[in-house]
Amino acid sequence: MDKITQISINSDRLHHRINTLAQIGQQPSGSICRLAFSPEDLEGRATVKQWMLEAGMTVSTDVAGNLIGRYQGKSPTAPALGTGSHIDTVPTGGCYDGALGVLAGIEVVHTLKNHNLQLHHPLEVIVFADEESTMIGAQAIAGTVLLDAPDRYQSKAGESIQGCLARVGGNWDNLATARRSRADLVAFVELHVEQGAILEQKGVSIGIVQGVVGMERLKITIIGKANHAGTTPMEMRQDALIAAAELILAVREIALKMPSQPVATVGYLNVLPNAVNIIPGQVELSVDMRDLSDNCLQEMLAQLHNKIILIAHSTNTTISTTPLLSVKPTLATPEIQYSIESVCKQLNLNYDYLPSRAGHDALEIGRITNMGMIFVPSQGGFSHSEAEYTSPEHCTQGANVLLQTLLLLDQSH
Amino acid sequence: MDKITQISINSDRLHHRINTLAQIGQQPSGSICRLAFSPEDLEGRATVKQWMLEAGMTVSTDVAGNLIGRYQGKSPTAPALGTGSHIDTVPTGGCYDGALGVLAGIEVVHTLKNHNLQLHHPLEVIVFADEESTMIGAQAIAGTVLLDAPDRYQSKAGESIQGCLARVGGNWDNLATARRSRADLVAFVELHVEQGAILEQKGVSIGIVQGVVGMERLKITIIGKANHAGTTPMEMRQDALIAAAELILAVREIALKMPSQPVATVGYLNVLPNAVNIIPGQVELSVDMRDLSDNCLQEMLAQLHNKIILIAHSTNTTISTTPLLSVKPTLATPEIQYSIESVCKQLNLNYDYLPSRAGHDALEIGRITNMGMIFVPSQGGFSHSEAEYTSPEHCTQGANVLLQTLLLLDQSH
Repeated sequence: MDKITQISINSDRLHHRINTLAQIGQQPSGSICRLAFSPEDLEGRATVKQWMLEAGMTVSTDVAGNLIGRYQGKSPTAPALGTGSHIDTVPTGGCYDGALGVLAGIEVVHTLKNHNLQLHHPLEVIVFADEESTMIGAQAIAGTVLLDAPDRYQSKAGESIQGCLARVGGNWDNLATARRSRADLVAFVELHVEQGAILEQKGVSIGIVQGVVGMERLKITIIGKANHAGTTPMEMRQDALIAAAELILAVREIALKMPSQPVATVGYLNVLPNAVNIIPGQVELSVDMRDLSDNCLQEMLAQLHNKIILIAHSTNTTISTTPLLSVKPTLATPEIQYSIESVCKQLNLNYDYLPSRAGHDALEIGRITNMGMIFVPSQGGFSHSEAEYTSPEHCTQGANVLLQTLLLLDQSH
Repeated sequence: MDKITQISINSDRLHHRINTLAQIGQQPSGSICRLAFSPEDLEGRATVKQWMLEAGMTVSTDVAGNLIGRYQGKSPTAPALGTGSHIDTVPTGGCYDGALGVLAGIEVVHTLKNHNLQLHHPLEVIVFADEESTMIGAQAIAGTVLLDAPDRYQSKAGESIQGCLARVGGNWDNLATARRSRADLVAFVELHVEQGAILEQKGVSIGIVQGVVGMERLKITIIGKANHAGTTPMEMRQDALIAAAELILAVREIALKMPSQPVATVGYLNVLPNAVNIIPGQVELSVDMRDLSDNCLQEMLAQLHNKIILIAHSTNTTISTTPLLSVKPTLATPEIQYSIESVCKQLNLNYDYLPSRAGHDALEIGRITNMGMIFVPSQGGFSHSEAEYTSPEHCTQGANVLLQTLLLLDQSH
């Protein structure tokens, strides 16, 4: 091992910063409310900017409101290596989702600076704007924003995206200029908490993400006939809830039979008229299917549509579907996955490969450049709540894997 | 045939009265709102009382608010024969539910009077108080009112049963004196619309009711674990809605396998947190099971409880049940069923035997004396809505069957 591969991050400084950022927007329950573009978000950005400066970075904000810290490389003309994540939260967020990736990125740079080390490539730490809602920051860099439909990015409180961006130094009118490419961002690696319980259950410290799953989301409406639950014989019924029950089990069966282990969920279901003594006349429900393979998703959709025809026929109901959301999967670059694996071996950390079944900024960045993600375990799989927790040891391990992976990519790119 | 068996009711007068009563409480939609003890109910009772007087009856109100018209018999000491039903409606009632039984009863007496005929037994036409909610009228006569729990009979608007009864001439404090027995009410026959579509589908004019079904009603609560619909693998889920779907189909299977053709319904279902991207953590649902045989109901309950244990185990959920309602079935007296059948043959009307799967005043009266019910077809099976309809021809047939059945019972009792 040469000298550079023996350095490691400052765990105390990382955790001090995690805990400091967690104070901003903390609620009595312990959860964190740091909604994108809110005063708490602005305060968090100012704090993070200060840490970037302390770590030796120059800091700027792009037109999409992304806060970008840049640590110069030996070759000022080389394309950058990137890392980062987000610091905005859902209304009841935790301390680690997003924040870990940003603060570990800053810690990596701070460690390089303290060792008077400089990479060949410039190294950027990006705080993406509004990951939890519009993903405007990552989408702008990926060039996937619908520039002629600003209303789509309106906040839930009804504020325009133009106003939101202006508040953090962005500018909707020039948003197209935020777009980047492999020519100036050669690779991007995001460290994130798993937000699931797979690593914990397997007793594994590091997850090597194979990609961010795609998603097909549908609304299904079943029309039967509301009728008296006493006087209507079983064989004369058009019970929308019987059809729904068969559909719920079919959705699960379809997922279980696919070799790639996709997930599929009916999370929302509403019955009309929903009375003890009336046969359900109408049921509306949602289907959410996710997998790393778009082929798998399309096959599941096709099987679902076939099943719907059979169920509608056997239950004497009418079933219609409306697409709600369709997101294509983004695969992680194999070379980055192998780099993370070799770092885990070097650091003697056990690891496993897994897909990310939640969306991340890396999903968008992977559309324009080489992308990888590192997961660390989430206790109990909890996320988006005050119960979200990743141990200091796991955070430190993740940050060190990020550091060493960036060092390796610096050599190989 | 002797002279008396050749008489028949006055169809025009019956339908004039059905249409006149339907004006009282009629809503713009065409449905009827004549809630028990409301001004509309009081107006209806006054109108019906007037028709009872025109038909030659003496009229009184008992302490339970039952309006009773009595047509003297040749033997003033003989126990009465009874018929009748109710004139109160649900908030969106139809023209026939209850009203047909009351007005056909009055028409039977009016026909006897016009022919100067008198039965051996006194003949009573009873307008039972509040069939659609508390059943206070029929329960008082049957002696099944919980006399020490007046709060149970409070109206949905919050008015006390004491106040309600006082308004129609009743008296809660003396309610026990309303109780009757076979000694003064030897038989009771109620004509009612089917409120189902069985007679219509079979093309049958008269239904001979075998009894009023009993009912077991449960609330079932399924506790799983709410979790991220993306990051939680299928095999790690505790999905309360999967358990609910299996339960919904099991309830149906249990009913379909019983030889007596019971009905079983899951009409109410509520999901928590009910979001597209969250695995359902909790589901609450209702089960409503009805059959003429209490043995069948108890067997279904036992099978359901066994199934719940299996489903809770296979889905890794906790399932608890709470009884909501348990009503024992009341069988119609076989001799009255045979009397109705012989009348149908005499009148050349096709008929079929069937259970009543909705509750009726006769359910209570059958607990204290000989009881029978006559059903006529409901178009499309609709009831409790403005779509409730029974043709004038079917109403007339039902009233004539009621007349001839009462004549036959007068001879046999």
